Amino acid sequence: MSMEIPYKIYLEEKEMPSQWYNVRADMTNKPAPLLNPGTMQPITLDELKPVFCEALARQELDDTTPYIDIPEEIRSFYKMYRPSPLTRAYCLEKALDTPAHIYYKFEGNNTSGSHKLNSAIAQAYYAKQEGLKGVTTETGAGQWGTALSMACSYFDLDCQVYMVKVSYEQKPFRREVMRTYGAKVTPSPSMDTNVGRKINQEFPGTTGSLGCAISEAVEAATSQDGYRYVLGSVLSQVLLHQSIIGLETKTALDKYGIKADMIIGCAGGGSNLGGLISPFAGEMLRGEADYQIIAVEPASCPSLTRGSYRYDFCDTGKVCPLAKMYTLGSGFIPSANHAGGLRYHGMSSVVSQLYEDGYLEARSVGQTEVFQAAQQFARVEGILPAPESSHAIRVAINEALKCKETGEAKNIVFGLTGTGYFDMVAYQKFNDGDMSDYIPTDAEIEASLAKLPTV
Amino acid sequence: MSMEIPYKIYLEEKEMPSQWYNVRADMTNKPAPLLNPGTMQPITLDELKPVFCEALARQELDDTTPYIDIPEEIRSFYKMYRPSPLTRAYCLEKALDTPAHIYYKFEGNNTSGSHKLNSAIAQAYYAKQEGLKGVTTETGAGQWGTALSMACSYFDLDCQVYMVKVSYEQKPFRREVMRTYGAKVTPSPSMDTNVGRKINQEFPGTTGSLGCAISEAVEAATSQDGYRYVLGSVLSQVLLHQSIIGLETKTALDKYGIKADMIIGCAGGGSNLGGLISPFAGEMLRGEADYQIIAVEPASCPSLTRGSYRYDFCDTGKVCPLAKMYTLGSGFIPSANHAGGLRYHGMSSVVSQLYEDGYLEARSVGQTEVFQAAQQFARVEGILPAPESSHAIRVAINEALKCKETGEAKNIVFGLTGTGYFDMVAYQKFNDGDMSDYIPTDAEIEASLAKLPTV
Repeated sequence: MSMEIPYKIYLEEKEMPSQWYNVRADMTNKPAPLLNPGTMQPITLDELKPVFCEALARQELDDTTPYIDIPEEIRSFYKMYRPSPLTRAYCLEKALDTPAHIYYKFEGNNTSGSHKLNSAIAQAYYAKQEGLKGVTTETGAGQWGTALSMACSYFDLDCQVYMVKVSYEQKPFRREVMRTYGAKVTPSPSMDTNVGRKINQEFPGTTGSLGCAISEAVEAATSQDGYRYVLGSVLSQVLLHQSIIGLETKTALDKYGIKADMIIGCAGGGSNLGGLISPFAGEMLRGEADYQIIAVEPASCPSLTRGSYRYDFCDTGKVCPLAKMYTLGSGFIPSANHAGGLRYHGMSSVVSQLYEDGYLEARSVGQTEVFQAAQQFARVEGILPAPESSHAIRVAINEALKCKETGEAKNIVFGLTGTGYFDMVAYQKFNDGDMSDYIPTDAEIEASLAKLPTV
Repeated sequence: MSMEIPYKIYLEEKEMPSQWYNVRADMTNKPAPLLNPGTMQPITLDELKPVFCEALARQELDDTTPYIDIPEEIRSFYKMYRPSPLTRAYCLEKALDTPAHIYYKFEGNNTSGSHKLNSAIAQAYYAKQEGLKGVTTETGAGQWGTALSMACSYFDLDCQVYMVKVSYEQKPFRREVMRTYGAKVTPSPSMDTNVGRKINQEFPGTTGSLGCAISEAVEAATSQDGYRYVLGSVLSQVLLHQSIIGLETKTALDKYGIKADMIIGCAGGGSNLGGLISPFAGEMLRGEADYQIIAVEPASCPSLTRGSYRYDFCDTGKVCPLAKMYTLGSGFIPSANHAGGLRYHGMSSVVSQLYEDGYLEARSVGQTEVFQAAQQFARVEGILPAPESSHAIRVAINEALKCKETGEAKNIVFGLTGTGYFDMVAYQKFNDGDMSDYIPTDAEIEASLAKLPTV
């Protein structure tokens, strides 16, 4: 008989991780190196330094050090909103009438509303350490921009966010949160950068794109003294910082003697999934344990399930390094009907390599079934989930229902990355029955991939 | 030397309160009884039963039982989002350079975004126990309506919310959260009730008021079989349920041997303040301890600091019982420039009596200084607070700065009732420098009070 498991497992401060875990160190097949877009050769530290802080560039290139100390100031900041609870979904289990035990790691209890803050605070810290004045970034829906604004505010760093113009206008609340934290939020394309002016001239009235916003943010970073560019997903440094999610999860499970059978995470650029699964994948890589790991992606942007594993640009503007990853092509844009995040064309090269090597499987799910799961979860577990997180909920519920058929009491763990409070336009579409489930055709994906460089 | 105090104190499940505390039982001067608006005589259980669930009506009238068991199903629901953290504001202390120790009890980590859920789940539970089909209520900005929607969804009760039309139109996101939880949300005044049709006919194009929405909700409850009306603040039953806040706070402080010097809460109808201070006021009433308790209200709606202690209607429609309370007059409406909540004309009769008897003091603060405190808090403590909660933050910061002058290391505890994620229109006004600080004149308050009945 095991200990009685509380609804929410909180670690004590002394149980919180003091190091991040770098899963690359335990991978036999390392992720392929980033390529310099100018030379198409593996990028060097010196080539990365003008764009990224040096400490972060070093983390990006380090695929051998398994544990990296979390600096004391970052640990202090983490204590304001971490540990995040690992919650036993007793009410969901009851509603599903399943013998499965469902756990979720909830990253939404902070004002950024998601796990993004875990890496934002780390990136801001290193920027401050190197004496920079500020950082620039792009944001689409605004989760990453909010997280970075909070982190920069804490360290008194200037924060310049290029926000895709359509989001800037349609999501004024996210914008105001960033402004409250002191960030300068500029609708992109703007008239402040060369690339912005050029695009505004070529496409008058354009509402912008993430690719354009990235290009503006990179130009802003490299054209101002004391600024660097930062990114909230995809990069290996981001997965390193996000390993805090998985490490806390594993510590909490171990504390109660629970062995996870299945670990489920939603996957866009891969930062949450990579962080959640890192310590578990590490055990698999070292031959110490076995888990079923499932990456869940939207059917409208299915990089793992329908993409190709090859070198591609990380941005549509082609100013960033190339990464080898599962990709739909850097020119791929999900259907406008797609409501949630997880819109990125590619997948973290760490996650891609683990997938290629069979350490995880991938599933794609449709938008309507995702919101059905979100609503069911919200009604019994109380938390209104982000559309992104709800992809993981969908598969967790599906798996729990399979357990009901087979009678298996599996331990299902999933990542609940955030809350949906700023996504109510999407929920309204669902509530009104106006949600569509458009899925790209094979021809569309092939056409997008055909434009990629041959490396 | 005391124990090292963590950033966040979480109680274990076994430490969570199993009973609510009814502070009225320890009051020598009991709050004056509610009056039946028809007879102007103290209202009886039988007279309350057509409007309220019987169990709740009994709680409303019970001023002698000190502890009331929390039913098991409510305790289970509480475990999904409670205990709420008692947080040591280390970062705020550092930013203020104060010797004071600042603690806040944070009630915003649930989808309703505030403490309102504590009473919503209790009221829904008793409605379900009595075999009702559903409940009706009104909501202004939507916090209470959201909380009630969540509670009703959990117990599979019908939930009908009359939402002030201007909020329904200007706050579509709150409305969609309620709809996601299955509530029927109707803009008020509607064409569904007699009172709504009458008001629409008399004032074509009106955008509604809380008083009108209350009248519609009461009519809807009493004209449908199996429905009752529920209310989210002011009532003594609500303060009873909200005592969970104070009980958890006291247990957490006791666990670390911390003696609060000062307890600060924002006050609109008084539900949060009353809940937070109950166990501390109880100790004062029993002569066991002494605390400085401060109620903070907006200068634009100053019922305690500038109102009169007398019988008044609880609603502008004059359909609800009368309560003896500090009031600005049931016809008082705060200036349209007032951005936050805390717009109620009166104050819980429990809080009013404790104030009258000198157990707490009251302060009023201006809107701009409140948002300045909110922003300062958000930037160092990470949480974007609700405008309501920020009233308490303002006074906590003021008191911590006084400690800096005197060198006193006081223990300051305040209630952080919720998050401001759905209040970004107000933050935008502040960010744009468009906030006004209108304060009612003495003549306005006198004119409002002159219309009250003489009881």
